[in-house]
This record gives sequence, structure tokens and C-alpha cells, in this order.
Amino acid sequence: MDIHQNFNFAIEILGTISFAMSGAFAAMQRRFDPFGVLMIAFVTSVGGGTVRDLLLDVPVFWMHDLVMCSVIFITAIVAMIFKSVERKFRVTLFIFDSFGLGLFTIIGIQKGLNAELHPIICLTLGTITGCVGGILRDILLNRIPLILRKEIYATACIVGGSLFLLMVNYTHLSYVFVQVSTILLIVAIRTLAVKYHWQMPKFYGVEENSEM
Amino acid sequence: MDIHQNFNFAIEILGTISFAMSGAFAAMQRRFDPFGVLMIAFVTSVGGGTVRDLLLDVPVFWMHDLVMCSVIFITAIVAMIFKSVERKFRVTLFIFDSFGLGLFTIIGIQKGLNAELHPIICLTLGTITGCVGGILRDILLNRIPLILRKEIYATACIVGGSLFLLMVNYTHLSYVFVQVSTILLIVAIRTLAVKYHWQMPKFYGVEENSEM
Amino acid sequence: MDIHQNFNFAIEILGTISFAMSGAFAAMQRRFDPFGVLMIAFVTSVGGGTVRDLLLDVPVFWMHDLVMCSVIFITAIVAMIFKSVERKFRVTLFIFDSFGLGLFTIIGIQKGLNAELHPIICLTLGTITGCVGGILRDILLNRIPLILRKEIYATACIVGGSLFLLMVNYTHLSYVFVQVSTILLIVAIRTLAVKYHWQMPKFYGVEENSEM
Repeated sequence: MDIHQNFNFAIEILGTISFAMSGAFAAMQRRFDPFGVLMIAFVTSVGGGTVRDLLLDVPVFWMHDLVMCSVIFITAIVAMIFKSVERKFRVTLFIFDSFGLGLFTIIGIQKGLNAELHPIICLTLGTITGCVGGILRDILLNRIPLILRKEIYATACIVGGSLFLLMVNYTHLSYVFVQVSTILLIVAIRTLAVKYHWQMPKFYGVEENSEM
Repeated sequence: MDIHQNFNFAIEILGTISFAMSGAFAAMQRRFDPFGVLMIAFVTSVGGGTVRDLLLDVPVFWMHDLVMCSVIFITAIVAMIFKSVERKFRVTLFIFDSFGLGLFTIIGIQKGLNAELHPIICLTLGTITGCVGGILRDILLNRIPLILRKEIYATACIVGGSLFLLMVNYTHLSYVFVQVSTILLIVAIRTLAVKYHWQMPKFYGVEENSEM
Repeated sequence: MDIHQNFNFAIEILGTISFAMSGAFAAMQRRFDPFGVLMIAFVTSVGGGTVRDLLLDVPVFWMHDLVMCSVIFITAIVAMIFKSVERKFRVTLFIFDSFGLGLFTIIGIQKGLNAELHPIICLTLGTITGCVGGILRDILLNRIPLILRKEIYATACIVGGSLFLLMVNYTHLSYVFVQVSTILLIVAIRTLAVKYHWQMPKFYGVEENSEM
């Protein structure tokens, strides 16, 4: 299991880094000062897991562990220093981000299964873990959360998470295989969606403040 | 008590449905994709109760119960299918929404009383249960929460909740009577407010970003 | 210790009042109705401490104590009555606000130390206690949180909190002295920053919705 745990840890760190990067770059685009950039990076990275842990009433994962905070801090510094080279690493960041989304989703589902919750609730927790960080980032930057509207993001989360639950419950495949194939599916969905401009069908709507 | 519990359950389901409807229609107006619509419906329905349960440090009500999630899921699907007929059911939805607001407020107060908190804190929890879902919906849609500004919404919550607490503490009326009359009062306040364009007095203010 | 506790209590009340004032005035500027003003005042005052207590999984501080709710309620009423004289008290409010920020930061750090967390996590909790109320206020008013962008606010928090932790851990100075000097440092940083228009360096960025 050592290799498996190291694999998980490596992907979680990569996911945390890419979520922090995405927050830091978005905050710099909006002209935040360095501490603002650090805060947005922090919220984007740990937001989803924090809400999940509060809902589960288990200790919040980053409170008793300095690794995450250190990783985010260093990532934010690096992002500020290498701001100008963002464009060169855009594809790399996108891939990190997709792997992070996949792993974060699985971590959320796994935590729900450990608490013996119904698979549907576990899927909800997985989606929350994957998506809330990006939603909080967009709220703090005062824009409509893009992942609810533009990219195949929550959709990739839900499709991948459903497959994961089906494989865990109804097959005898090894856990590592199930996990890796789920992550690859989520990465594939997102990559193809962005490459070929896939979008979920949207509803015709008027962009105004009229209310029910 | 069976009839009483069934009555509560029926109203809670109707309230959940109408809050989910209100979220789903608002998200479709903003051109969200189907999963975005589902998420906004979910947050609008369970947001208030979730924050209340986190504050009380009790298990979050929808985590161990599939009924709410299923109801919201079906409601969101139905809302997407029958999007075009929204206008026909506007009055029905409004009445559901008002009943839901009344019952959610009472549930929040009751949970506070069960935890032996002071009536003022219970009233705060009732208002949170009734209003936070709509506030989160508006934050996610990137607009100023309307219920803080336009409709007699929080006001109906607070007036109804105060009456409920007075009747529970200082009279010997049956609980069902107290509950039904509170809900009817809240529905009446909201209906009359909308019909006759009642508004709370507002403060003169400049609509700019100048800050204290 | 009696004088020390009274001193703490007095500053905490002054901080609560000034945070509630800041919320109430901002809500009146945006033309909220009286209950909206009350809610924004409440959220601005208790938001930071509430998130801190949820993260620590300890009872939320205002749930078992009527003093805070009463203070906020009276403050909101007073703010509504004396709205027109806001300008005269602007400097007084600013000083209250800075003292409140200092004390809230220290309370957050102290609660983290009591839970035997790492100093870096304690500093994070202190910053959350000081800053989240103002961030929630700005989210509810649908504007980009100013404290992340304009004022030396989070910066004062982090610098003051770091000094506090250094003095607590590595010196034998009396706790009262450490506390008072931290608060004065935070007040001094903010006052000088506003007086001389200090700003942290910002990042060049385009104000658009383009996303990674």
C-alpha cells in the first residue's frame, strides 16, 4: 500500500498546487495585493475540503497539518514571482487542475463512504470537495461561478464520481485501478470538452434581475 | 400526533419543492447548464437548514436522509422540462414559497428551543433557516440578495417568529394551532406585501463603492 | 486578572460595535431596509468569529450569550437614527474599527493556541477572525472585498499577529503588555497606511472575465 499512498499524496499535492495557482493567477488578474493573492489561493485550495469536513463534522483537514498550508504559501509566492510566464504553463496547469479535480472528488466520496453515508450523499460530498473551492474563488472575485455555467466541470465530477461508486460497489476491481481510471476519465472529459468546445445545453434566459 | 407530523412533513416537502423551484428558475434565467441548475436548486433548498445545523453542531439534516435530495433532484428535472410554463404557476409557486418560509422559520426556532437556547437566539436561527438559502442563491447568481432589500421577506420571518415564540412561552394554545397560525400570518404578510407593494422604508444612499 | 478581563471585554464590545457600525452604514448606503441593515450589521460583527468557531469545532460564541446580539441590535438602531451624522464620527469609527481588528485577531490566535494548534494555523485563525466579517459584508453587498484589495487590512492583521506569536513564544513579557502592544501596532499600521495612502504593491492585471 505504500506506493498507493505515495501516489495519492503526490496527486493531492499536485491538485492543491494547481488549485492554489488558479486562485493566485485569478487574484493577480483582478489586481489584488500580495496578501489578497495568498488568501484567494488558500480559499481556492482548501475551500471544498473544508466545507466537506464541516458537513461531516470531522476535524478540518488543514488544521492539524502544516503541509497543505506550506504548499499553498510556496505556490502563491512562486505564482507571484513567475506571473509573466503563466501563458507558457497554461496547458500544464490545466492538466494539474484536472488531476486535482479527479482526486479531490474521489477523496470526498471516500470520506463519505467511511462515514457510511448513502452513495448519493457521497457523490454530493465528492462534488462539493471538487467544486466549492473554485466557486468561493469566483464569489470573492465577484463574478458568476464559471464552473456552474461554462466548463464541463461539475459534470465531469458527477460522471466520474458515479462511475467510481459503481465500480466500488458492483465490481471486484482493485481500488488503485478504480481510482486511476476514474481520474483518467475526469481528465479525459475535461480535456476533450475544452479541446472541442463541448458545452452542456443551456437554457434560454434573459440576463436581468427580474425575479420570480 | 400522527396527523400533526404528516402535516409538518407535507409542508416541509412543499417548502423544499418551492425553494428548489425558485433556485432552478433563477439559474435557468441566468443560462446555467443542467448541473448548475441542479446545484443552485440544491443550495437554495438546503442552505438555510445546513447553516443552522452547523451553528447548532448537530448532524446536518440532509446527510442521513435521501428524501430531501431526491425531492430536490426531481424538482430540478421537472423545472427544466416545464420551464416554459413557469408563468402559469407563478402564483402557486409564490404560495408554496411563503408556506415554506413559514415552516422553515418554525423548524429553525424549534431546533433552537430543543437546544435550550435563549428565544432571541432561536429567532435568529429561524430567520437563518428561512432566509440563508435565498441569500446563497443570489450570491451564486452574483446579485445583491433581494430578500434583504426588496420584499417583505426577512421582516415576515421575524414578525411571524416573534409571535410564535410569544404564543409558545406565554399561552397554553395547542402547538398545532400556534404553528398553523404563525404560518398563515407569514403567508398573509407576504401576500399582502406583494399585492399592495408594501415595502419597508429604505435609507437614502448612493449606489457607489465609496466606503467608510 | 480582573482589570485585564474587563479591559479585554471593553475592547471586544468596542470592536463589535464598530464592526456592526461599519456593516450598518454600508447597508444603508446600498438602500437596504431596516431588517437588511440589522442582518448586515450582525454578519459583519460575528462572521469572523463564527467561521473560526466552526473550524475549531467549539460552540459558536454568540449562541450562548445574549450580550453580543443585544450590542449589535442596539448599534444597528443607533446607526439608523444617527445616519446623518456619520461623517462627524468617521475618525472615531475608524479607530474603533482598528482596535476591534487588533483584538479580534488576538482572540482568534488565542483560541487556536488553546486548541494546541501550530502557530501558523493560529495566525490563519486570527486573520480569519479579523477579516471574514468584512469579507462577508462585501459579498452580501455584491462588491469585491475591499480588504483584499485596497486597505492595509489583512496585512496589518498578519504583521501584528506574527509579532504577537513571537512575543508569546520567545519572550517573558506579561500577557497584557504583549496584547496591548500588538493592538497598538495594528492600529498604528492602519492609521499610518490610511493617512499616507500606503498600499501594498499590486499586480498588473486586466479587469475582465478571461479565465485560465
